[in-house]
Amino acid sequence: MKYVFGVDVGGTSVKLGYFDMEGNLIDKWEIPTRTEDNGENIIPDIAGSIMVKMTQKNIDKKEVAGVGIGVPGPVKADGTVIMAVNLGWKNKNPNEELGALLNIPVKTANDANVAALGEMWRGGGQGYSDVVAVTLGTGVGGGIIINGHVVAGANGGGGEIGHIHLEDDETEACGCKGHGCLEQYASATGIVRLANKKLADSSKPSVLRSGEVSAKTVWDAVKDGDELAKEVAEAFGDYLGKGLAAVAGIADPQIFVIGGGVSKAGHIIIDYVKPYYEKYAFPGAKNVKFVLAKLGNDAGIYGSARLVLDK
Amino acid sequence: MKYVFGVDVGGTSVKLGYFDMEGNLIDKWEIPTRTEDNGENIIPDIAGSIMVKMTQKNIDKKEVAGVGIGVPGPVKADGTVIMAVNLGWKNKNPNEELGALLNIPVKTANDANVAALGEMWRGGGQGYSDVVAVTLGTGVGGGIIINGHVVAGANGGGGEIGHIHLEDDETEACGCKGHGCLEQYASATGIVRLANKKLADSSKPSVLRSGEVSAKTVWDAVKDGDELAKEVAEAFGDYLGKGLAAVAGIADPQIFVIGGGVSKAGHIIIDYVKPYYEKYAFPGAKNVKFVLAKLGNDAGIYGSARLVLDK
Repeated sequence: MKYVFGVDVGGTSVKLGYFDMEGNLIDKWEIPTRTEDNGENIIPDIAGSIMVKMTQKNIDKKEVAGVGIGVPGPVKADGTVIMAVNLGWKNKNPNEELGALLNIPVKTANDANVAALGEMWRGGGQGYSDVVAVTLGTGVGGGIIINGHVVAGANGGGGEIGHIHLEDDETEACGCKGHGCLEQYASATGIVRLANKKLADSSKPSVLRSGEVSAKTVWDAVKDGDELAKEVAEAFGDYLGKGLAAVAGIADPQIFVIGGGVSKAGHIIIDYVKPYYEKYAFPGAKNVKFVLAKLGNDAGIYGSARLVLDK
Repeated sequence: MKYVFGVDVGGTSVKLGYFDMEGNLIDKWEIPTRTEDNGENIIPDIAGSIMVKMTQKNIDKKEVAGVGIGVPGPVKADGTVIMAVNLGWKNKNPNEELGALLNIPVKTANDANVAALGEMWRGGGQGYSDVVAVTLGTGVGGGIIINGHVVAGANGGGGEIGHIHLEDDETEACGCKGHGCLEQYASATGIVRLANKKLADSSKPSVLRSGEVSAKTVWDAVKDGDELAKEVAEAFGDYLGKGLAAVAGIADPQIFVIGGGVSKAGHIIIDYVKPYYEKYAFPGAKNVKFVLAKLGNDAGIYGSARLVLDK
């Protein structure tokens, strides 16, 4: 075997790439995600795109170890996508459907779990086998790798850390209809919520009082020494530190890899999270490492390719 | 291979048993735990006891698949016991030490993790492969089984769910020196704490105002309809439900198996926990099953025997 393909299916575009067996990216490209008709064209589109690439690059089926796919929704260990709202999928099994079109082994997993595998293979978690990847984006996603393997979960919800309950006093509902989920404080939108609340409750001057409040403007203000923004960062760090301490009490990883749009603020994120993590974590886990993710938007194709090699 | 031995090392006694390959218990017995001299006699005592049993029962080494050991402390995946305070052990590896004495393969894991394996093999979790076992005793222990395998954890702390932080307002310290750990509310001592606090804060009449307050008297009072005891049970259910919802958001098991001394109160425990669990769990995990543990004090020998068969 010489090559492995990785596919990251998003609501707008499908990212594809292929790698040698050591995880060196050889080529990557994108195709649009056709979500009409319950997304029934997505898998044939992926199959066609891979077939064309193989023809162009003179790759024989016998040289391809397999195709891995990351999907935005809960996926069972057997590859069944229970539901992927953004794609229109329900109870769809790409392992079978794409496998039949390509006649190549196909493995499917949740996109956050797959991104975690990618970061373990060639990103911030390289060299570790017990990795928790945390994606701080519009929501909060997580991927848990134990002994090199993804924890898919009985309901395809392994690593659904965004919905760990942390705040009894929360009055607004989370997207999951719960109240007080980690995602409500540690996502990009959560940080904006925390900032707006702080702006309303306090009379402190702040650059955030003029102009748009976004996760980026909050972290920029923190870096500029804005006192109110620093309070927001402390609140963010407290919630995320508490959530990750719970994760450590269950999965006990070697390393946390922090990615997603919010992490673009850089290492300052970790500076605010780690003290709270250490406050809340059980003694044996207090010195778990924290690093930033390295693969950015490519984590999904790396990880889905790695999924194929996961025995 | 015809037999497998299971050993459960406690601070006072070592439980031993042997099983056929399907997990039928053939014989069990106990020996005292000699904790003097940093517990250096414990492993030779276990070796001797197993050798004598094999001689008495005419069991040949070639018929024994291995010996599994459960130890009260964090154990790495390679069998190194990082620390077992109650035994006097530190950085001890029974896989090597007992293996050398017996010339039989030995596998070691944390006792709570091993008990979870036992409950999966022949107890409340039989038929499932993604199991979280919760032990409500003097403390709160947990064991997490994913796809039939124990999650040992990078620091030997896989399933250390007793120290998930749940209460910011807690003023008393937990044994781990943290504040607001699950164990402070859901263990036998935690229930007593909750009851004493409720008795002090409320003027409601209660049978608990006369006589000893223990986890048992609290649950007996709940069954008798004592209003104050029922409030204690609600608080217990809220904390444990919240903690287990966090566990579900990370490990996403098929089933929770509730054991330990507190669980002797019976199914009423689950009746108080499940509504809170459902309140806090993410949507996909709300209908996870809850059952009581079945193996009682034998869970450890069943599970350590099963550990040997864990590939």
